[in-house]
Amino acid sequence: MYYLNQKIENLVRIFDQNERKSYLRLDLNENPGGLPEEFVNGVLGDVTPQLIAQYPETLHFTEVLAQYLGTDIQHLCLVNGSAEGIRYIIQAFTSENGKIVGVVPSYFMFQVYSEMYGRNFIKVPYNKDLTMSIENIITQLTDDTQLLILLNPNNPMGNVYTDEEFKTIMQVCKEKQITVLIDEAYHYFYPKTFIQYALNERHVFVTRTFSKLFSMAGCRLGYVVGHPDDIKYVQKFCTPHNTNAFAMLFAERILTTPGMVESLVRKFQEGRSYLISELDDRGYHHKGEAGNFLFIEPKTKAQTIVERMKNEKKILIKAYENVGEFGDCLRVSIGEKKYMQQFMVALLELDK
Amino acid sequence: MYYLNQKIENLVRIFDQNERKSYLRLDLNENPGGLPEEFVNGVLGDVTPQLIAQYPETLHFTEVLAQYLGTDIQHLCLVNGSAEGIRYIIQAFTSENGKIVGVVPSYFMFQVYSEMYGRNFIKVPYNKDLTMSIENIITQLTDDTQLLILLNPNNPMGNVYTDEEFKTIMQVCKEKQITVLIDEAYHYFYPKTFIQYALNERHVFVTRTFSKLFSMAGCRLGYVVGHPDDIKYVQKFCTPHNTNAFAMLFAERILTTPGMVESLVRKFQEGRSYLISELDDRGYHHKGEAGNFLFIEPKTKAQTIVERMKNEKKILIKAYENVGEFGDCLRVSIGEKKYMQQFMVALLELDK
Repeated sequence: MYYLNQKIENLVRIFDQNERKSYLRLDLNENPGGLPEEFVNGVLGDVTPQLIAQYPETLHFTEVLAQYLGTDIQHLCLVNGSAEGIRYIIQAFTSENGKIVGVVPSYFMFQVYSEMYGRNFIKVPYNKDLTMSIENIITQLTDDTQLLILLNPNNPMGNVYTDEEFKTIMQVCKEKQITVLIDEAYHYFYPKTFIQYALNERHVFVTRTFSKLFSMAGCRLGYVVGHPDDIKYVQKFCTPHNTNAFAMLFAERILTTPGMVESLVRKFQEGRSYLISELDDRGYHHKGEAGNFLFIEPKTKAQTIVERMKNEKKILIKAYENVGEFGDCLRVSIGEKKYMQQFMVALLELDK
Repeated sequence: MYYLNQKIENLVRIFDQNERKSYLRLDLNENPGGLPEEFVNGVLGDVTPQLIAQYPETLHFTEVLAQYLGTDIQHLCLVNGSAEGIRYIIQAFTSENGKIVGVVPSYFMFQVYSEMYGRNFIKVPYNKDLTMSIENIITQLTDDTQLLILLNPNNPMGNVYTDEEFKTIMQVCKEKQITVLIDEAYHYFYPKTFIQYALNERHVFVTRTFSKLFSMAGCRLGYVVGHPDDIKYVQKFCTPHNTNAFAMLFAERILTTPGMVESLVRKFQEGRSYLISELDDRGYHHKGEAGNFLFIEPKTKAQTIVERMKNEKKILIKAYENVGEFGDCLRVSIGEKKYMQQFMVALLELDK
């Protein structure tokens, strides 16, 4: 008897991220420059036919990561990019038609997975000035809410939560026994973390990725942090050997090379300071307290600039329509200063 | 309101495949020798910081793979190891409590996923002499069966299906509108394929992997073949960027380097011929018509040999308990002749 899952039949997915190699890529919040070439070549020197041929071993890298984070391996689950971890948390801790609360716009996969698995995703909107009031979130946290998902800092808005705000949210979730997922994809660009909740409390998860600051989006590696009695259910969902040997090798080297993480943060900050200062000097309205991206309100049509950036300048950026008081605007990923210079030259030429 | 998926709460998973690096690995049907070192170094020369930092592009490699298989990209879905594809097929084409039929023993994830998603897995047992009669399978194919899963050749038994047998099975599935998944993880070790059904008919899938003959288990790459109107539902389940750039780079090079696949097959066949001839000469009862593994009935206790192989000889193999007329026996992965020689020397010393 033929059966087709109706939810997947109706689900809309977008797969369009190809043919980007020959552009300056400021559209997906990657590190456009990547890791230092010398470092990369050093790591590649340790790749052997055996590393490639053998099913990947996760224990050693999990121990390295646990040590870096100041925890133990029972608090961690490695995943093939943090999107995989998000998926498993939704599958494990929400039911069919179960209620998930999240702010919108945010990482689009929160909603895609909710739809894929027939969950009821409640959207918390931003204020007109692109701020997020935690009251807007708390209002939606009802007794039947199963999961709250927050991206901190949130993409594309770049807003963050104070310790006080977060504590208030967490108290409500604890009272109502709501599981909490805090996606910290943009951690390290922004130092404040809520990982201590995931390490010390039940029913709280933090997801992180090696795709952003760690400049390894091509390798696919992320992890979930949580209480051992919760994380074990995320682990049980994992496809066998879900994380590959290359990704774990590179991630280990980044974590254990003195000064490497700091150097990546420093280069990002130089780029960010430069971009903000240039935009301010030229009278551009922009937004993004944290994260490796900025919203910029252009003087002319956003979509036209995106197209001309691509066709004439070989630079990829994104346009967002109708974003609060910004109207249509650009989202630009932040990389090293030289790439921000390249972007500014192009912007000033095209946006007039 | 706290919710925990009861199916995942009750599911038993085993994760024990670590600390294997310093052994000769004949336990998981990998290629113990791996790809030629010169070839590996050639491919690594093309790894750049950008390849690592950029989200992986799948289109180019899918085109290369389609050309290699003589099909087009609409028939293919890339996955992070074929286990991921198997998972999505079960999620898309079976319902909660839906009936899945498969032979046992086989690849253990067929049953794990069935349990994870609350499906009803009907086990078709082997005959006492370790043959599989297709009548045993057909008897279980009822009007309410949603999915038939067959591994061809089947691991650990190594048995295969003739064209005639397969045609008969497929006719029953067509009549009863049962979706069919043929896992060809061990293709190339054994040349017969049923991929033409997946390319030409509706509701038939073939999964393949780069972990076995292609010697890339550490990289994680597999694919699903099916009709475009079916494969699109598998694609929709994929986690974003599920396949990594390294895996696709290596796989492309293997497929496009003249003679590479043939050379891997030849080395395997040398190892297989040698092992079978040695076992025959020494009077060992063995089984495995196809696949890169053999069942061997030892003269002494199988579990003791496995332990002594590991501790005294640094060789990993597997023991199976109570396998038909074999009783307890060994499963040994087949690699190049030099590794088979190393195994035989150890076996003759320990099994007496």
